[in-house]
Amino acid sequence: MTYRAPISDILLALNHGAGLQAAVKAGHYGDFDGDITAAVLEEAGKFAGDVLAPLNRVGDEHGIKLEDNKVTTAPGWPDAYQRWTAAGWNAVSGPEAFGGQGLPLAINAACTEIWSASNIAFGLCPLLTLSAIEALDAHGSNELKKIYLEKLISGEWTGTMQLTEPQAGSDVGALRTRAERAPDGSYRIKGTKIFITYGDHDMTDNIVHFVLARLPDAPAGTKGISLFLIPKFMVNADGSLGTRNDIYPSGVEHKLGMHASPTCTMTMGDQGGAIGYLVGEENRGMLCMFTMMNQARLGVGLEGVGIADRAYQQALAFAQERRQGRGIGSKGDGMDAIIVHPDVKRMLMQMRAMTAAARSICYATAVALDISVRAKDTKVRSDAAARGALLTPIAKAFSTDIGNEVTYLGVQIHGGMGFIEETGAAQHYRDARITSIYEGTNGIQSIDLVTRKLAADGGASVWALLDELTGIVKQVEASNDPAFGTTGVKLRDALGSLDRASKWLLERVAAAPNDALAGATPYLRLFGSTLGGCMLAGEALAAKANGDAGDPQRYVTLARFFAENITVQSGSLEKTVIDSADAVNGADAVLLA
Amino acid sequence: MTYRAPISDILLALNHGAGLQAAVKAGHYGDFDGDITAAVLEEAGKFAGDVLAPLNRVGDEHGIKLEDNKVTTAPGWPDAYQRWTAAGWNAVSGPEAFGGQGLPLAINAACTEIWSASNIAFGLCPLLTLSAIEALDAHGSNELKKIYLEKLISGEWTGTMQLTEPQAGSDVGALRTRAERAPDGSYRIKGTKIFITYGDHDMTDNIVHFVLARLPDAPAGTKGISLFLIPKFMVNADGSLGTRNDIYPSGVEHKLGMHASPTCTMTMGDQGGAIGYLVGEENRGMLCMFTMMNQARLGVGLEGVGIADRAYQQALAFAQERRQGRGIGSKGDGMDAIIVHPDVKRMLMQMRAMTAAARSICYATAVALDISVRAKDTKVRSDAAARGALLTPIAKAFSTDIGNEVTYLGVQIHGGMGFIEETGAAQHYRDARITSIYEGTNGIQSIDLVTRKLAADGGASVWALLDELTGIVKQVEASNDPAFGTTGVKLRDALGSLDRASKWLLERVAAAPNDALAGATPYLRLFGSTLGGCMLAGEALAAKANGDAGDPQRYVTLARFFAENITVQSGSLEKTVIDSADAVNGADAVLLA
Repeated sequence: MTYRAPISDILLALNHGAGLQAAVKAGHYGDFDGDITAAVLEEAGKFAGDVLAPLNRVGDEHGIKLEDNKVTTAPGWPDAYQRWTAAGWNAVSGPEAFGGQGLPLAINAACTEIWSASNIAFGLCPLLTLSAIEALDAHGSNELKKIYLEKLISGEWTGTMQLTEPQAGSDVGALRTRAERAPDGSYRIKGTKIFITYGDHDMTDNIVHFVLARLPDAPAGTKGISLFLIPKFMVNADGSLGTRNDIYPSGVEHKLGMHASPTCTMTMGDQGGAIGYLVGEENRGMLCMFTMMNQARLGVGLEGVGIADRAYQQALAFAQERRQGRGIGSKGDGMDAIIVHPDVKRMLMQMRAMTAAARSICYATAVALDISVRAKDTKVRSDAAARGALLTPIAKAFSTDIGNEVTYLGVQIHGGMGFIEETGAAQHYRDARITSIYEGTNGIQSIDLVTRKLAADGGASVWALLDELTGIVKQVEASNDPAFGTTGVKLRDALGSLDRASKWLLERVAAAPNDALAGATPYLRLFGSTLGGCMLAGEALAAKANGDAGDPQRYVTLARFFAENITVQSGSLEKTVIDSADAVNGADAVLLA
Repeated sequence: MTYRAPISDILLALNHGAGLQAAVKAGHYGDFDGDITAAVLEEAGKFAGDVLAPLNRVGDEHGIKLEDNKVTTAPGWPDAYQRWTAAGWNAVSGPEAFGGQGLPLAINAACTEIWSASNIAFGLCPLLTLSAIEALDAHGSNELKKIYLEKLISGEWTGTMQLTEPQAGSDVGALRTRAERAPDGSYRIKGTKIFITYGDHDMTDNIVHFVLARLPDAPAGTKGISLFLIPKFMVNADGSLGTRNDIYPSGVEHKLGMHASPTCTMTMGDQGGAIGYLVGEENRGMLCMFTMMNQARLGVGLEGVGIADRAYQQALAFAQERRQGRGIGSKGDGMDAIIVHPDVKRMLMQMRAMTAAARSICYATAVALDISVRAKDTKVRSDAAARGALLTPIAKAFSTDIGNEVTYLGVQIHGGMGFIEETGAAQHYRDARITSIYEGTNGIQSIDLVTRKLAADGGASVWALLDELTGIVKQVEASNDPAFGTTGVKLRDALGSLDRASKWLLERVAAAPNDALAGATPYLRLFGSTLGGCMLAGEALAAKANGDAGDPQRYVTLARFFAENITVQSGSLEKTVIDSADAVNGADAVLLA
């Protein structure tokens, strides 16, 4: 079955949950007035459903091929990519000075969800290009920008990000790829990178590689890393393509999922060294990486949202068609559609509610990142930057955990059919699996949350957020809507748990860092469950108040389900954070016995 | 890497957690004195590590082939199967009258874990044969037993169980395969079955199919189903093989995992009908199915335990080898093995603790089933039967959920390498996925737990179990061992939650069945988390008391970790069971809007 973008859910989450509408009203978005949001998303949904979704299965089955140092993508993919760039989708949030449409990141975030839902392996390519654009725009010389930025923004050329080496994964500082200064101011790069997404392909006639490497006299570790732009084909003065540069795909991985996305080993230096150009300053490559990390991590979080929604839509359709057994009090002659069974309803609600919560968190992250660069007021900008920094690891890890959990349930609802590849449910499950690993594993995100984001400024950005969320809870309680059930109690309890766990961790980060690290993963889950619950409740209240999202009570029921099934876990998670550090840190006696 | 059976963990769980030793002492096991347990398991571990584990990857990569109505298994598989039967492994728990060794089901349960851990797709074949043996032994005529039982027990022939049809999955009563009476007392069966595990293969020269079908005059639904034995090759009077019977594999599925296990569509009747023999009485086929359901479901639960342990062993080895980053206060020169990082320790502990809890629950189920047929005293037998019936859905669903969760973590610990098929972690993740679906989905297990097992006799078997578990908690508290941390509190709270949730559900099963059904899945999780926590604590106490399992404190730490990380969720799960039925039952407004 195909994919239909859930436009009204997206708009509710974007405008109300994530606060886009309020931010626009407050003037933080400058000229952008939000009028075109719905139209852009409708069009994106149409393109995704018509062009990208039908290629998802083909890509999985056909995969990619590496022959003669060239990667060939699945049938129909190059054509779809041309249509994608022609329709302007690559340029949505790119800077206008270089041909971009300059739309907010928040709009592009919703689009990213839509691309990922329709075809996650396809959507991954522009996600990487976006990171390349950001790095180049922020740190590149005007000369480099002039040659490369417009083509990256239009999507005429794609970008890659090359960090990983066999011995340097999460620990980027361990990388060994070497760069040597050439007399003309350029560099010659030699080395091998692995796990390079879309490291080569046949969808565009050039690829712009962004490669981390080390100068001969560089300090050890992350302080000795520089970022280089290495074109696949050299670019002549007139903009035409010149000679092939010395950077080649020398292998492709055989992966669990994302079969249509080439994951390449890239070899540089077989012919004397790839010609590269410095981006930013020498030895400041990690700074460039950090610039774009928020957006890249958010992008992966949105992949989690997208793949979850796709799995949900497929499972919902199946549950309405597949007949097995009879519901309690069923009046019909034969078997009922399995959606009548409470246990199936539970799974579908869990899929839908988790997806909605992850979506809201991701969009809120995008709005914060937007405000941090678009607002006029410095304090508004810096507060938003802190909020964006705080939410990013949650958006990435919570949403991709959810992507995995929801696609798991998608398989489960299909029963035996779910295990059969032709059904398609299994593909979502396989594809989702990488999202909690790449762009910083979810463990790394949790550690980032605890040691950098929570710990920044004495926890100020956490307390500010908790205050806002408490405001939502008060409104839920004041609404006296019985359809909320125990939502108010659950959210209030969860905020208490999050507050106490945050304080405990904050104290431990300094005093006993291994205790804080031991609790990082359950803490991130506690944070996401609490935040997601409050946001869904806030959206339900907004739907009731605004009446622009159809029957608002369905959002109340959804928020209630999340609060009573997911947010309710916050109390246990608080205890786990606080109580279990001893057992974690004493694990060697168990594991190494 | 290969697999090493965790013999001391297994023995602790079997002898103490599951109570095998106490049951033997109490005389419930008759002649069996338990002296050979360790030796049998050591041998099983050796066979699994030497013969089965090396074929696991081969099977996954090579898969199976269907050509000319014949299925060919992966290279080395037929030979391994011959060695397996020659070594007597198929006959461990078979009745002695037909050549079996008559060992307790509990011993075979531990063996099943070991086979599943080393090669889950291989181990699945004898699991099906075991069900066939059980059905035939309990319900077959003496004539059928004489011809087929010995060969099934030795493993010279394998068995299949054929229930599923396209329109009849969880709802077995919807099946349409037809059986007609033949003048000679046999039957002619026509129809199509799907998802038939090892429906055909080349590992033995005959296969004994057990097929559910409907007589022309049978009542509708489950009351009109009969069970037939259909040999692949007819058996002559002298025991030699005769003509090929009219039952053929007409298709094989392309699956997410378990590639080496053929999942066949079976067609009967292209040549006039397969010749079959009635097992049990006409229209009483479901009764025969129920006979063997406990053991088959336990078998799948043990697959969950096995695959979890395999994933854990692989992840542990990787975490000790792979170097990335540095631990807090690390003194070394270079990077540390990732096992120093608390977040990695947490994942490994979670894998280990969850696996241990699932193991204990499965073994306890096996011991209960053993006592229910072996004990002399009627009351002891019937109590054990109730215990076995209660534990079976938990053993199946909780353990297979855990199999999925643990293999997920196994991939996660491998980072990017986990997504690459060559690493092997992904295979475990794929293979595990079917275990929560087949032999009754985990949703079906939860419903069975709530509506049949809990509801039986006013909850008597639940209260009896809660009493026993309370005894363990008291011992934990009395031990005053600070290494238990907050284990006692967590277990006591969880028992309270389980008690309250059980009472609430018991009332609802009758008064508002959809409310009970809505809470079935979280209730099963609550039950498993509480039971598993208590059992691990009990094992730690036994290890301390007996001193026969190496350093006992590692079991204390393991129990503590489980209590503080998994059992602690019981409070939230209780609330979910009780509070969330309204949102689940009101889901249509959300899902169908």
